[in-house]
Amino acid sequence: METTTSENLPFRANGVITLTTDFGVSEPYVGIMKGVILARCPHSHLVDLTHQVPPFQPGLAGFWLARTWQHFAPGTLHLAVVDPGVGTDRAMVLLEVGGQVFVAPDNGLLDRVYRSAAGARWRTFGRAEVAQILPPDVSHTFHGRDVFAPIVAEIAAGRLGISNLGQIKAVEPPPASPTGNREGRIVGADHFGNLVTDIPAECLAGLHRPVVLFRGQQITLHRSYGFVSPGTVLGLVNSWGTVEIAMAQGNARQALQATPGEAVAVAESIPPT
Amino acid sequence: METTTSENLPFRANGVITLTTDFGVSEPYVGIMKGVILARCPHSHLVDLTHQVPPFQPGLAGFWLARTWQHFAPGTLHLAVVDPGVGTDRAMVLLEVGGQVFVAPDNGLLDRVYRSAAGARWRTFGRAEVAQILPPDVSHTFHGRDVFAPIVAEIAAGRLGISNLGQIKAVEPPPASPTGNREGRIVGADHFGNLVTDIPAECLAGLHRPVVLFRGQQITLHRSYGFVSPGTVLGLVNSWGTVEIAMAQGNARQALQATPGEAVAVAESIPPT
Amino acid sequence: METTTSENLPFRANGVITLTTDFGVSEPYVGIMKGVILARCPHSHLVDLTHQVPPFQPGLAGFWLARTWQHFAPGTLHLAVVDPGVGTDRAMVLLEVGGQVFVAPDNGLLDRVYRSAAGARWRTFGRAEVAQILPPDVSHTFHGRDVFAPIVAEIAAGRLGISNLGQIKAVEPPPASPTGNREGRIVGADHFGNLVTDIPAECLAGLHRPVVLFRGQQITLHRSYGFVSPGTVLGLVNSWGTVEIAMAQGNARQALQATPGEAVAVAESIPPT
Repeated sequence: METTTSENLPFRANGVITLTTDFGVSEPYVGIMKGVILARCPHSHLVDLTHQVPPFQPGLAGFWLARTWQHFAPGTLHLAVVDPGVGTDRAMVLLEVGGQVFVAPDNGLLDRVYRSAAGARWRTFGRAEVAQILPPDVSHTFHGRDVFAPIVAEIAAGRLGISNLGQIKAVEPPPASPTGNREGRIVGADHFGNLVTDIPAECLAGLHRPVVLFRGQQITLHRSYGFVSPGTVLGLVNSWGTVEIAMAQGNARQALQATPGEAVAVAESIPPT
Repeated sequence: METTTSENLPFRANGVITLTTDFGVSEPYVGIMKGVILARCPHSHLVDLTHQVPPFQPGLAGFWLARTWQHFAPGTLHLAVVDPGVGTDRAMVLLEVGGQVFVAPDNGLLDRVYRSAAGARWRTFGRAEVAQILPPDVSHTFHGRDVFAPIVAEIAAGRLGISNLGQIKAVEPPPASPTGNREGRIVGADHFGNLVTDIPAECLAGLHRPVVLFRGQQITLHRSYGFVSPGTVLGLVNSWGTVEIAMAQGNARQALQATPGEAVAVAESIPPT
Repeated sequence: METTTSENLPFRANGVITLTTDFGVSEPYVGIMKGVILARCPHSHLVDLTHQVPPFQPGLAGFWLARTWQHFAPGTLHLAVVDPGVGTDRAMVLLEVGGQVFVAPDNGLLDRVYRSAAGARWRTFGRAEVAQILPPDVSHTFHGRDVFAPIVAEIAAGRLGISNLGQIKAVEPPPASPTGNREGRIVGADHFGNLVTDIPAECLAGLHRPVVLFRGQQITLHRSYGFVSPGTVLGLVNSWGTVEIAMAQGNARQALQATPGEAVAVAESIPPT
């Protein structure tokens, strides 16, 4: 993932609104959010990014968003609702970067988007600001429908200015992965249980027999699953260009009981002594 | 689900057309319907509600629609095709409520939508009316493509008036669930085999140790699956705000061989004597 | 599938762009392509046909497209990316038929679309033409995003003429299945492992006890899976109107180790002597 130098474009909605959730597509939860948005902003152009974020993994949603938004035009709004804290009083975030705006729960989802370009600006807002905008009796059981969708629609329709959603926050950028020295973290686990890391494949350059270091173990890197026997834990480079820990024909997350945030690194293989 | 008092708005298409089917998304059946609609009404704004309605469960599709449509603006058209009777001569339904229009097979799919607001108006139409509108050699193998999609597109484009689709029918509203006294019915089974009922969670108010009564058995209500051991049948409140019968890590529909329409109730637990 | 006599309409983009891929919907690959298209052609109307083409089965994608495009209006663009050869220097294809345009890798994907109407015109183009249109440093790892999406968007926006994408190629139409005498081929396997053939159901007319012939074996045709016991291999007519080989409650592709292109036929049952 390249870090773009953003020119701090002012945001002017172009009508495109992307949606990223863990709601699935078996029931019409996403459709309801679209109804709410279209009722308030009929000319929205809604684009599904994915509604299959594995449950309770806002970090993985952010990992994908951080690699996706650059392909959209300035003026695009991105709504991401992966929200283990729904029902609590956690704040919400509005992030501006490159002339685009992101709205999400304040749970780390947008950390990687924040770091994906210079000049990102961060605001947090909560019940107080929402009460100024939406009817006070808003339900807090389905925030995607009752809070996020109407707020995004009001922004898209040009009736709600970004400055109404909190002061720009002097935010310490979340600690970047020190990928210069080949260290990073587990981002999350995809639907197959593959453990996505934030170590870019470029960090493998110069390593003759690269391995992934995880909990003191060396995991050998291979080109793909087919090179090892079923049940073997292996490292590989995924289609997002980062290192991944997988189990051939198995589920690495379950087998390793790995959790987001755990440290991981790549290094030269050390032969057993 | 609240029952809205609808003001009998006249229908004026706003271009939004929602789609609800059991066609899945593995093959382009839904895409074909969209092609048909766009060819006749190029400025349609198509919104997928879900295409994962479990097969042959029009009642469950209607349960979802009855909780979804209120979030769309007046002028929205809703097309729902869950149609076990395709190929037979079953009629089709056009329902108007709250300035929105629903088109579906006449198989009970729209019963719950009809009851979800006062002032709903019901029309049925069949081959005779369709022959007036579409070429007479219309195929009857894929009604979604050959009948429903073109009719909805003609309405959306303003070329087909609703009054051409049958007389308003003096319809006895389907018997409402007497939820006042905590009784209802199995609506259907979702993809996990959870048995959705139409008993609103509010009916649990005042019960100290609520149970679900089903076929003379008491099923204990819990907050979620995690509170019981695998294989236990339990009751819970689902995200639609109604009571549900589930089996922890199992399939309640298969285990209980339950079918849509079966009676169910909630009550105070009666200790064994 | 009827073969339409196309009037060689000139292509004039109507804004509708359909997308067919094997990218799935769990991660935002398709969303990224949509971002690229919308950034270059903001008024595109994007329609998903399916993103669940089974991996590495361009032929099956083409089978579906050949039965789908006729339902779209002239002026529609179809982008199909099922591309086992990504990263190699395989060419790309632009196909015009009936006033619609298809863009895909040159791997056979569009063969059946080519045969689905008279008057189809075929062009191939490669790195040389792409270098004239897109920045020369285009990535070749995600062609859907970096090559196909921008080219389709440029055509849709009216900035790229079709004649810039290679000369019309005098192409020998791929050998049509001699379905007149009831022979055809395995097209591919769907998600259930059912083996789709290109033998139209009409070829069964006149057969009293029809069977599918595959590798010298006779496979009995039934109306549906329910008529045989689990594990039985049977023939049936699928919803696309062609003959299919399936295994009741099983996976015919795995059980028979069948591959696309294998010969298959329908015939009168020959009783064992």
